Amino acid sequence: MKVLVLGGDGFCGWPTALHLSDRGDEVVVVDNLSRRAIDQELGAESLTPIATVSDRLTAWHEVTGKEIRFRNVDLAQDYAGLLALLESERPDAVVHFAEQRSAPYSMKDSGHKRYTVDNNVNATHNLLAAIVESGLDIHVVHLGTMGVYGYGTAGMEIPEGYLDILIPHPDGDPVAQEILYPTHPGSVYHMTKTLDQLLFAYYVKNDRLRVTDLHQGIVWGTNTPETKRDDRLVNRFDYDGDYGTVLNRFLMQAAVGYPLTIHGTGGQTRAFIHIVDTTKCVAMALDNPPVPGDRVKIINQQAETLRVRDLAHKVAELTGAEVAYVPDPRKEDQENDLLVSHATFLSYGWQPITLDTGLMMEVTEIARRYGDRCDLSKIPARSLWTKEQRAGVPAGYEDVPEGAPATVRV
Amino acid sequence: MKVLVLGGDGFCGWPTALHLSDRGDEVVVVDNLSRRAIDQELGAESLTPIATVSDRLTAWHEVTGKEIRFRNVDLAQDYAGLLALLESERPDAVVHFAEQRSAPYSMKDSGHKRYTVDNNVNATHNLLAAIVESGLDIHVVHLGTMGVYGYGTAGMEIPEGYLDILIPHPDGDPVAQEILYPTHPGSVYHMTKTLDQLLFAYYVKNDRLRVTDLHQGIVWGTNTPETKRDDRLVNRFDYDGDYGTVLNRFLMQAAVGYPLTIHGTGGQTRAFIHIVDTTKCVAMALDNPPVPGDRVKIINQQAETLRVRDLAHKVAELTGAEVAYVPDPRKEDQENDLLVSHATFLSYGWQPITLDTGLMMEVTEIARRYGDRCDLSKIPARSLWTKEQRAGVPAGYEDVPEGAPATVRV
Repeated sequence: MKVLVLGGDGFCGWPTALHLSDRGDEVVVVDNLSRRAIDQELGAESLTPIATVSDRLTAWHEVTGKEIRFRNVDLAQDYAGLLALLESERPDAVVHFAEQRSAPYSMKDSGHKRYTVDNNVNATHNLLAAIVESGLDIHVVHLGTMGVYGYGTAGMEIPEGYLDILIPHPDGDPVAQEILYPTHPGSVYHMTKTLDQLLFAYYVKNDRLRVTDLHQGIVWGTNTPETKRDDRLVNRFDYDGDYGTVLNRFLMQAAVGYPLTIHGTGGQTRAFIHIVDTTKCVAMALDNPPVPGDRVKIINQQAETLRVRDLAHKVAELTGAEVAYVPDPRKEDQENDLLVSHATFLSYGWQPITLDTGLMMEVTEIARRYGDRCDLSKIPARSLWTKEQRAGVPAGYEDVPEGAPATVRV
Repeated sequence: MKVLVLGGDGFCGWPTALHLSDRGDEVVVVDNLSRRAIDQELGAESLTPIATVSDRLTAWHEVTGKEIRFRNVDLAQDYAGLLALLESERPDAVVHFAEQRSAPYSMKDSGHKRYTVDNNVNATHNLLAAIVESGLDIHVVHLGTMGVYGYGTAGMEIPEGYLDILIPHPDGDPVAQEILYPTHPGSVYHMTKTLDQLLFAYYVKNDRLRVTDLHQGIVWGTNTPETKRDDRLVNRFDYDGDYGTVLNRFLMQAAVGYPLTIHGTGGQTRAFIHIVDTTKCVAMALDNPPVPGDRVKIINQQAETLRVRDLAHKVAELTGAEVAYVPDPRKEDQENDLLVSHATFLSYGWQPITLDTGLMMEVTEIARRYGDRCDLSKIPARSLWTKEQRAGVPAGYEDVPEGAPATVRV
């Protein structure tokens, strides 16, 4: 099928574009390169040396003989360009990764909150409006997040998007109803994904669009079978305080001989999925679209759940690193349970990669191989969620403790 | 108290600003005059001859000796201006009317959908981000809509914003939980108000802002005791197919001798409130704020519910007009029940104006007095909700039947 990968130069988008191309889909990467611009803004860069888009696509062509085209379009700002793209390409599907996806970045200050809301809401809404205007029947596969659910549900498993409830009726039996799972976003970024959900629900109802929303866990891992085929195809590895997810930051801390810093008690339970599985799940979602008239198809895209401190200890065991507890910059529950259904992808035959089987490869192939590129000053997470936290944190707050060894142990 | 009325030049905002000024609040009207610009775009204008902002404020000062100041700020586009305004004025409260509020306008085409989403979401989000950045404790009173609820709930009364539910538990008794009432918006405009709800919920939780969200019914009526004090203070009366709400359009059709056109069966039940009560309810909401840490305070702001055909027959009885049925441009249920709690405002002592007591005044004071200013070509509602409707409507579809009498009967 023909697929536009929106945000196809990013951490999830790039390996997904390659995976789809590899299996025979006709792929067009659409990206405004905002993620690279944010690297410039933050003075950070991927641990892995990522190539330019042009070099990436050239390498892919040289290695596989397959062509991926690239279009630089800003979905949030350039509606006319987006519409023209849909009308000229007439894709069967679009995979929509084109949103600002860091919670800490979204919380830095008003400007970053506003950018995240403006960019994410308008990108998604422009896409939906353009599909309606084009009159084309294009399946939208969107990367959402497990974070829309919030955490902790009285020991019950979180279903895939919809919840069956009973509404007490004053005059008789409770009325059964199915609702969108009530949202409890933990950051402005996560909030934008709850807004996306309502945009999808509306357009699916009013215009019979076909939409699949993937509620993804925290992605770990870096490379995929496709990105390993050439050094120029290597995927991003972010370890900075804004874009580095918890596992990557543990790996870097271990690689450079720092203690693994846990925010708060580390009792926060999160859902995880390997990047290879992201690419596989998106492909499965493309192969199993809803039909016009169906509600939004919501699928939980995660392999396993784990407490952050347990994750730290896994990394510590593999690397010999120590573990340190530091203040939590987020406003969040310190201890929560998290049970999540992932029945849909399992029903499609998915066999998830788990941390126990894949983690050592990350330590050796990424953290140790590229550790000498690490900029130690970028590891701390410095975004604080509220004014109380900004007022209350100790001077010099950061999650690399002062006096930690400065030598690199790789 | 000191109150900024955002959107204070509009249909609800203007009489509210006067009402608050009249009772002694210090009022600043903040408006980018977008509603007047949209009149230009549509080639429509208020039936009542509204004065410029400057003349309005001069008249108010002359009549009452009170001063209302005006600031032209675009909340969605000019964040710096908004923040500077909050920091210099340091208001106790803001009343937020500053959103595009017509459902048909929001459905005209992609451009209007996009404007409505971009404007409404960014206006609300900028306001919340600016309040957080200012560090001020400002009570936000927002005009939402009954339309976020959707219509029809198995004969049950719609509560004020929150719903007590039971979640069936696999291992025991159902778990009770309170959730935001599930939304079923009927247009892109209504959808933006469901997005607003999530923005409020997030900022109230993360930053302990104080927010009251008023879920308002369809407003009818034109003038208030304050707007009647001088001709230059007269409020808007919109009767065009985009901004004219159902009652105003019936009144104009009756005034000019046309049949009252009902979209579909007229079995749609809607909630109504008089403009005088809008101003009173907003004042009561200002006087009864939540405290920091409270959830969003949601209040239903409506006096009564009525089927559209019953409304038509009320107008027909008063005016002698005929009633005609035309195709429904909206994608909506044709027959629905609607029961709505309005316990909060009743508990504050509110005695609502009803259609049975106030409607005749509208017929005589507005429709007959200003009927000669009516542009007949503006009455039809021409926005269609979906491509199926655009494809399926008969040629020449409009809600003034061809051959209707062209003479004006006032």
